[in-house]
Amino acid sequence: MSGLPQGVDVRLAAARLQGVTVRTPLLECAALNERVGGRILIKPEVLQRTGTFKFRGAYNRLVQLTPHEREAGVVAWSSGNHAQGVAAAAALLGIKARIVMPADAPRIKTERTAALGAEIVPYDRLRDDREAIGRALAAAHGAIIVPPYDDPQIVSGQGTVALEIAEDAARLGLTLDALLAPAGGGGLIAGMCLALGDASPATKIYSVEPTGFDDHRLSLIAGKRVANEAGGNSFCDALLAPMPGALTFEINRARLAGGFAVSDDEVAAAMRYAFTEMKLVVEPGGAVALAAVLSGKIDARGKTVAVVLSGGNVDPRLFARVISGL
Amino acid sequence: MSGLPQGVDVRLAAARLQGVTVRTPLLECAALNERVGGRILIKPEVLQRTGTFKFRGAYNRLVQLTPHEREAGVVAWSSGNHAQGVAAAAALLGIKARIVMPADAPRIKTERTAALGAEIVPYDRLRDDREAIGRALAAAHGAIIVPPYDDPQIVSGQGTVALEIAEDAARLGLTLDALLAPAGGGGLIAGMCLALGDASPATKIYSVEPTGFDDHRLSLIAGKRVANEAGGNSFCDALLAPMPGALTFEINRARLAGGFAVSDDEVAAAMRYAFTEMKLVVEPGGAVALAAVLSGKIDARGKTVAVVLSGGNVDPRLFARVISGL
Repeated sequence: MSGLPQGVDVRLAAARLQGVTVRTPLLECAALNERVGGRILIKPEVLQRTGTFKFRGAYNRLVQLTPHEREAGVVAWSSGNHAQGVAAAAALLGIKARIVMPADAPRIKTERTAALGAEIVPYDRLRDDREAIGRALAAAHGAIIVPPYDDPQIVSGQGTVALEIAEDAARLGLTLDALLAPAGGGGLIAGMCLALGDASPATKIYSVEPTGFDDHRLSLIAGKRVANEAGGNSFCDALLAPMPGALTFEINRARLAGGFAVSDDEVAAAMRYAFTEMKLVVEPGGAVALAAVLSGKIDARGKTVAVVLSGGNVDPRLFARVISGL
Repeated sequence: MSGLPQGVDVRLAAARLQGVTVRTPLLECAALNERVGGRILIKPEVLQRTGTFKFRGAYNRLVQLTPHEREAGVVAWSSGNHAQGVAAAAALLGIKARIVMPADAPRIKTERTAALGAEIVPYDRLRDDREAIGRALAAAHGAIIVPPYDDPQIVSGQGTVALEIAEDAARLGLTLDALLAPAGGGGLIAGMCLALGDASPATKIYSVEPTGFDDHRLSLIAGKRVANEAGGNSFCDALLAPMPGALTFEINRARLAGGFAVSDDEVAAAMRYAFTEMKLVVEPGGAVALAAVLSGKIDARGKTVAVVLSGGNVDPRLFARVISGL
């Protein structure tokens, strides 16, 4: 993986996050292992600050701002989880955060972002250009833009998830055959590629996406960035980015073994499974990698497979419907 | 604590459980710490095999059976969580398990116990004597009875929860000011008393129970075992034992600092909090200790307080109602 941008350093990010992030555990569920006939190592980033891994990248970016930049504040756009990550990191560091969020984002995400002290700027997901709104806002305040994924410091921060998985797996004496993680813009999985690139070359890394938003899968096949077809629909609100990021795809194409796509029904079944057997609250977008394992997209028999549950910010009414099977 | 029964040895139990139980993590939730102004260390036994700590005691008891005893099988009575613990331990060890369960036990508990291969013997909670049914069953098959709490090996197994808490707290450089855990028959909290007795004498240990079933609290005040008044009602199905166990109370009276009682509304609020902020699925009985913290029964300001979330086996429809606030 030559030609990587400067500044992408997952180990440095890990040092910055030490004592600030939750060191999430690596869990096993006997019922799940028995069901698939392998060892599934669950990385529950739902237990992370703000209920998602997004805090890692956001904090890694914000903590490196100069005093002058901190003064001016930050701007971000996000469907909700990056919003909370930026808001929480900004609050910890005493930085003003303005977040451009879809007017139809899950209420739990808007409310939690506001509760962290950020200013919410709503936009219409179908009509408005959120980046244009964000850039105008940043220009007006001289504020720094914190992109959701296409940024070396964001990618490095997210990659610490994989460093922790690798450390804990090594402690168990296990070698990872595969690692599955959700992909929206591809920041998490790109960071994981960087983190495992050298440490665990034999591990196959797969992106998992909702069907219709499987732009990583299609881009890997095409060998170049491909956008999702318009008109797709999925309840995985965290994973609806239109196409892979430029930086993230540069990293991912060099390291990913492939991509899987899962249906909303398979995701709902995974959320129910996590509720019943694992006692974890997982949002739709956070459950896609587990859905890939449960629906047999990957054959885990005799294998050691790490699965990232990337977020748990789901509206109670939606969660109630999903676990009731309605 | 002189005069303790022989065989109560939490460290031996920990050695037996090594590699069989889930070493559940000790979690912190930034939002919770900020809310109470202290450090709350969460021990999520919902992540344990079968979704509750009960597996610990059951396995510790069953693994010590002789080959002849294993042949004859085991009998237990339980509202559902001990049932699953015994069924899972029996399945791992190739032992036949017969479990006497209330006909109105949460369906998730009956189903999961049956799925583990146990034979379910239903009884009427208001009319039948479950112990009599269990004893008759054991006599008929020459089977060993595995009591839910009043047994040295069960108590020792449950106590491993506190050993792990103490180890992880020490690793964080923290001294526990208090430890709160649910009490039904008192097996978990008795095991924790034994485990912390020597290791952490400054730690105050409190039982937490649903109002109307706060027999530990009342018994500690009275200095002797007191039964709950008849006619009480609570949705904490795991904590409806009529009075403290004889063995468990002997241990608990010597070490407990006191007991708290929480209302069903406070428990429901704690379940919602665990869903929203901690992304954990907790059943009513498993959430009482968190409820005590959130409702201010204990002042955690400036303190380090460990809280056990003891189980997560809750019917999806009940959980859906609770998180929707209905």
